This record gives sequence, structure tokens and C-alpha cells, in this order.
Amino acid sequence: MLEIIKPILAQACELKPDLPILVGVSGGPDSLCLLDLLHRVGYPLVVGHFNHKLRPEADDEARMVAELAASLRLPFVSEADDIRGCAEAESLTIEAAARLLRYRFLFAQARQYQAQAVAVGHTADDQVETVLMHLIRGAGLVGLKGMGYRGFLPEFDEAIPLVRPLLDVWRQETLDYCTTHGLKPNFDSSNDSLDFLRNRLRHQLIPSLEAYNPRFRQALWRTAYSLAGDYAILSEVLDSDWAECVRREGGGFVAFRAAVLSEFSPAVQRNLFRRALHQVRPGLADLNFKALERATSFLSDTQVLQVDLIEGTRLFREADQIYLAAWEADLPLGGWPQFPAESDSMAIALPGELELPNGWRLSARRLEIADLEWEQILQNADPFQAWLDVDDSDESLSVRPRRWGDRFQPLGMKGHAIKLSDFFVNVKLPRRARAKWPLVCVGETIAWVPGYRLAHPYRLTKTVRGVVYLSLKHAPT
Amino acid sequence: MLEIIKPILAQACELKPDLPILVGVSGGPDSLCLLDLLHRVGYPLVVGHFNHKLRPEADDEARMVAELAASLRLPFVSEADDIRGCAEAESLTIEAAARLLRYRFLFAQARQYQAQAVAVGHTADDQVETVLMHLIRGAGLVGLKGMGYRGFLPEFDEAIPLVRPLLDVWRQETLDYCTTHGLKPNFDSSNDSLDFLRNRLRHQLIPSLEAYNPRFRQALWRTAYSLAGDYAILSEVLDSDWAECVRREGGGFVAFRAAVLSEFSPAVQRNLFRRALHQVRPGLADLNFKALERATSFLSDTQVLQVDLIEGTRLFREADQIYLAAWEADLPLGGWPQFPAESDSMAIALPGELELPNGWRLSARRLEIADLEWEQILQNADPFQAWLDVDDSDESLSVRPRRWGDRFQPLGMKGHAIKLSDFFVNVKLPRRARAKWPLVCVGETIAWVPGYRLAHPYRLTKTVRGVVYLSLKHAPT
Repeated sequence: MLEIIKPILAQACELKPDLPILVGVSGGPDSLCLLDLLHRVGYPLVVGHFNHKLRPEADDEARMVAELAASLRLPFVSEADDIRGCAEAESLTIEAAARLLRYRFLFAQARQYQAQAVAVGHTADDQVETVLMHLIRGAGLVGLKGMGYRGFLPEFDEAIPLVRPLLDVWRQETLDYCTTHGLKPNFDSSNDSLDFLRNRLRHQLIPSLEAYNPRFRQALWRTAYSLAGDYAILSEVLDSDWAECVRREGGGFVAFRAAVLSEFSPAVQRNLFRRALHQVRPGLADLNFKALERATSFLSDTQVLQVDLIEGTRLFREADQIYLAAWEADLPLGGWPQFPAESDSMAIALPGELELPNGWRLSARRLEIADLEWEQILQNADPFQAWLDVDDSDESLSVRPRRWGDRFQPLGMKGHAIKLSDFFVNVKLPRRARAKWPLVCVGETIAWVPGYRLAHPYRLTKTVRGVVYLSLKHAPT
Repeated sequence: MLEIIKPILAQACELKPDLPILVGVSGGPDSLCLLDLLHRVGYPLVVGHFNHKLRPEADDEARMVAELAASLRLPFVSEADDIRGCAEAESLTIEAAARLLRYRFLFAQARQYQAQAVAVGHTADDQVETVLMHLIRGAGLVGLKGMGYRGFLPEFDEAIPLVRPLLDVWRQETLDYCTTHGLKPNFDSSNDSLDFLRNRLRHQLIPSLEAYNPRFRQALWRTAYSLAGDYAILSEVLDSDWAECVRREGGGFVAFRAAVLSEFSPAVQRNLFRRALHQVRPGLADLNFKALERATSFLSDTQVLQVDLIEGTRLFREADQIYLAAWEADLPLGGWPQFPAESDSMAIALPGELELPNGWRLSARRLEIADLEWEQILQNADPFQAWLDVDDSDESLSVRPRRWGDRFQPLGMKGHAIKLSDFFVNVKLPRRARAKWPLVCVGETIAWVPGYRLAHPYRLTKTVRGVVYLSLKHAPT
């Protein structure tokens, strides 16, 4: 078994030969086999034993593991904790509390000893039981791929991996190994009592499945192994696609770059929507074809502005983005200039500056007509700056949000004003941003809609009387 | 149910409103529900019934379906065939023979009526049973994703799809639908007797799994649905990666472009190797981490020329390719010039041409020294043409394969000859190609190794006595 396990240790578990490993040793056949193998390969080891104190023989077993460590001249660390108390305090099952305290202890010791990894003795049987458990409860690829040879449990440690070198060794093989090498394992009945579901799977369900296929365990192990490979690729692809097309994500929403998302294949789109839906509605159970199909159809039909998906989520377009959002989501307005909620109107001094929410700042000043750089003004490509024909004799300048009945005469549209609400629709200003969009007025007349258009009467002409330069800039703090 | 099913018909099944559909109708609740729904949506339909003749009531049932079709004014086609006879003749189970004859009939009729699809009434329960069956027998993503809304059965028809619009409708819902709409389904007991495994799953295993999770069927359905999405992406990625890095594939081997393969991530490499292994060894069961890890390690360690994988397969390097091959594979030599197996040596006439195997042709002629284009000769970049200093007084020219003890003095290496075998190693001539590599000789001396090097004594110098021009060209017929 030593020769079989070596490449798994070096490659799948990525263990370096000369850095310590914290081995979790319960004293059962799996962990004794693991300890013995790691010791024979020559890794520097620390033996960690967590005493669950749930059975009368627990202290004897802890002592046996301690003696074994001593006989191998390995450091031994041990801890006992009140599992029943923890389970009650944290509303956990006994098994969940035991797992929590055990891993907390093992990783704390691993940090203490600067171990490169925590190693545990999960076997191929554990893998099969885990996958079956996920399958029965309902799982996607993530669950069905089972445990990995090497992985992280960030809730215990972000940097030290958990390795499982025995994942393709069957429980019976660890028993045989112990017999061959004179190891005397404990036979811990608490696994069964601790974990009733796993126990029933092991002793009832798996044997009944073996009635359908005598090599069911092997078959399910291979399925998990094969799915793990698929998952690795899929994660790469989807992580990269997600990064490419998600512009921002936050409480209850994901904002996609519409143009990027539309270029992906429907299969990728469905997966990205699925991921976004699970992010927006973490417990989402009833995701099905119809919801995802509504989402992908929405992408191709650009006339539709909004569509309901499932469980109070919706998709809608906004400028060059597509939002997948929960109805209650607090969608970001930070990207847009908005008028402060508490004010009706703010006067603009000349020269002067006004702070608007979210890091926007309006600055205004008079320019001398003689100094005007007409070239620059004619070529201006920034819709957030403007030159207005405003004389001293004009009414004073102010900024305010829209009001009922506002009208506006866009530059180039001679002779008549249109409803401001129609103008907003025409320029596709996102609906959510309209109510508080800052409007620069001369007296009561809208003279400039920043980001969009100057009012026709305030454009510069050869008969210009006076010039005010306005600029709205975003510089988030 | 009509409103729920419409988008599935149009989008998932890709059914056009005005082209006929051949509906397979057994007369059971699923197929009656399907027929009624398709009819209400307004598709032009043809009702197809295959009479399995396995039960006494079969003829009555066929008549009922015929009457239903008549009442809906739909064309009705029907066939009965000897399933037991077919099963015996083709060594199939009764269920497999029934499936074979049924689909053969349905697709034949679909062609007859120029139908856009064959529609069948598989339900969500059928999906769950199918996935569970695959799971028990051992399956990867392909099996666990279950049946699709639309797919092809190329063994029956390459162009007409099979659609399954009821895949997310539960059997109970089709029963309820029949009750609501006054449809009188047959309750066919033969499903059970035909398909013993499915029967046991339905009546024994699934209920026992529902003891672990009352919503087990729903959970497994969702798993399959989710995996189908994953599979769609994975296929896209791997098909494209495969096409990019596989140079050729054939009886028992796959040849990868080494440079392209090495650029992929290990997860993709493992999946491509897995696919190649399954192609080379179709029944391969015991593929595991160790074999795939040997394969990916081989890629990164370019010093290793060959590695055994599993079940008599190996990986080896050859020029810019990496072969994954079965030991018994008949690897292609077509790309290389080779000496014919039946000959010892072939004389070269001046002028003259020699046919070699696989479309290679050696041509030779004398050139006048006065006509030599020295510029061209000095700049020659084609290793398959050469100019030799060979006088009329020299021994005659021939081509032959290598012989034991051959020595060769490569151009530029003055004064001594080296072993031809060492030369072959130095220039990395693929091992398999060495034994029959054509060598041009003057008398017994190797004067040119086509594709590699001229012999030093035969190079053109200012004191050239006579010139022979040789060219080896590949023009496969």
C-alpha cells in the first residue's frame, strides 16, 4: 500500500517531504493505517487526538493513541471538550458539534506546530457514504463530486489544507493493513451512534443498493471521482466567465455586462443565471427549466425590459447592464449623480462648488468670452461638462430634481419643449435614477441635464452674452 | 398545465408550430396527457401506436387509441411485431427488444409523414428512475444528467429528434390531467413485467429512499437538471479543447499536439486523457487518480519518453506529438518516408524515380556543374532535397534501410563517422521510424539521410567532380 499511497501524498495531497503534518488519530483502523503510512514514508508528524468523551472507553482510547505516538517518538497533542454542552449551546446535532470541536482543535494545533496540513483518515467508504448522503438530500456537481484529496475548510483555517490520503483505500483494506502491521485499532461504536444517518446508509441502504449492483460502492466511488474532474474544469470556465461578465454584485443583486453575457452560449448563460439566482436566493430549491429559459430568452429579446424569474427575483435592463435582483434588493445608485434626498433645490454660486451624494461634485464658474476656446467647446465629448450662455441679468442658477410637469427643450430641437419624462425615456436614463437626477436650472427653466443635453436656448452662439462653465465630476471618497 | 408546457414545447423541444409531430401513444396516462396537450396547443399530429402484443388486452388498447385518434380527426398509424421473437433472435431482453421495435416503428412513420419530431410521454418519474438506474450501474455526468427535452437517437434516425415535453411533469399530474379532461387511460401492467429493474426501483428502492428524504424524487430530478446544464458547458469546452489538441485518432490510439496539450490546465488535461483512455479502451472501468496523475506528470517531465498508464495503455512522445495508445495499436507511419518491407535495397537510376510506401517518391538526376545555382543550394531549407558530389567513376547509387553496425559521417563533422543509431537518437528521429528509414548510399557508404543530413564526403565543394540532385517528396494518392 505504501507504493500506491506515495504519489497520492506527493501529488494529489501536495505534501512536502520535510514539513510537519498534523495527523488526526482517533485510534480506529483508518487513522492508525494513515499514521503508520505517513510515518513510514518519513514525514515529520504530530499526532492529534480529540477525546469526544461520549463513551466510557474514551479515556482508555486516548491513552492508547498517546502510547502509540510515544512508541513512534512523535509529539502527541490531545484535547477533550464538552460536546453535549456545545451541541446544546449552538443548537447543533451531537455529530455536528463533535466535528466542529474536533476540527477546531486539530487546526489550532496545526497552526501551533506550523504544520503544512491536517491529515485525516477518510476512506473510500466514507467517500461513498458522503456522496450518497448528498445525493439523497439533493445536490449538484459540488456535492456529488464528494470529498477531495486536498481542500480547505476556511471556517477553521484559510491557509492550512485538510488532506485525505486514504480516499481511494477501502475500510476493509485499512483493517487488513492494521492486521498485517500489528496495529491494534479501537473499534469505536460512537461513529454509529453519533451519526445515525451515516450509520443507516452504511448498514441498510448501501447493502440494499448492492442487491442491485454488487459493485455499487465501487461504481459510486468512480462516479464521484469522474465528477470531481468535471467540476474542476467547470469551475475554471464559469469562474472566468463570471469574472468577465459580472460588473458588480451585492445585497440581493448581480449586475451583468449585457454585451459580454449575450456572447456566451445558452448553456453558459443558464449556468451563470443559476449561480446568480443561488447567490440572490441562497436557499433556492425549485429552480427549473422554465425560470432559466425565461432568463435566457430575455437576453435575446432586447425589447423586453424586465421579466420575473422565480421566488421574487427578476431580470431587468439598465443602460449596458442586466440586473438579476431580488425585489427587495438595495440596488446601487452610486454610479449615478443624484440629488440629495433631503433638499428641494440648491443655489449655484459663481464661482462655486456643490457636493452631491456618492462622491459627485458640481463646479461652476464664469468664463471671459474673449478667452473661450471654441475649438475645445465644439469638440467636447464629455456630457458631464457644459458651457451655457448665461448673462448677469439672467435669473440665478440652481440645481434641483425633477418636478411634476417639467418640460425641456433639448439642444437642436428648435421652437418647442418636450416633457422631461419623455426625454428621460428617449435617452434611456435608467428608471431608478430619474426621480433624483440633478437638473441645472436658470430660474425655473431647465438649462442643462448633466450627462445628456444642454437646453437649446442656453447654447453658445455668436451673439453670446456671458458664459458659465459647468462640470459634474465623480470622485468617490 | 397548458401554459406551463408551452414554453417547453417551443424552446426546450424546439417544436415549430406548423410542422407535423409523430406522437407515440401507448394509451397510458402519460401519453394520453401528452397527446391532449399537443392537440390543444394546435400542432399537426400523427398518432403512432406500437402494439407490443405481450398481453391479452393489447388489441383492445390499440383499438382504443385508434378510436381516440379518430375522435380528434388525427391520422393513426399502428404496428404489431413479434417482440419475443426479436428478443431471441437478437439476444436482447424483452424490454430492449420492445424498445428497439417501438422506436424503429415510430421513426419510420415520422419519416413517412415528414414529421419534425417524435414525441414521447416520459415524465419526471421516468427521469428519476432512469437517473437512479444509471447511478446504480455506475455513471458519469453523461448518465446522471438523465434524458433531455430534445435529443437524437442516431441508431433510429440521424435527423429527426426525439422530444420529451413532459420531463418535468410527475406521473401523478398526468393522471390528474386525464381525470380532469375526461381521458380514459389504459393502465398497462406490462411496464412492470417488461422492465423488472425499473419496476423494483419504482416500487421498492425509491420508496425506501423517500424514507431518508420524503422529497427524494424531487431532489434527484433537480440534480439531473442541474447536471444537464453542467454537461452542456463541459461538452462545449472539452469538444473544443479536444479538437484543438488532437492531431489524429485511430484504432487504439490518440495523438495529441504536445505543445497545445501542455498549455491546458491539469483538470482539462485529465479530462482529455480520460476521454482518450475511454476511446482506446471502451470498457475501461478502473480509471483512477493514479493513472491520470501519471499521465499529467508525464506531460510536465519532458525527460521521460514513455509511461505505462492502465490496462495495457501507454503514453509516449514522438516528435511534437504525444501518443496515448494501446500496446496492440497499429500506429500510423503514413507521415514518414519508409523503405518497403519486402526489399533489401533498391538501385537509383540517373535520371530515375523510385516509389516508396505511403505516397513517397524519390527522384534523382544528374546536373551540369556549369548550370548549378549555388545561391539556391546554399540557401536550401528543405531537408528532403540534396545535391551530392558523385562522379561517374563512383560506385552506383541505391536506397536501403539501416543495417547492423551502420556508420555515418554527418555534414560538418570532419574526419570521423559516428554510429547511425547514435545519429538517429541525436536528431530525435522517432524510434518507430528508424528501422525502415530510407538511406541513400553510394556503394555501401551512407551518403544522405533524407530529412536530416548529407554525409560530409559527398558535400559540394569547389573541386566538385559531378553533381547528383536527389529529392524525396510526399504526395499521398
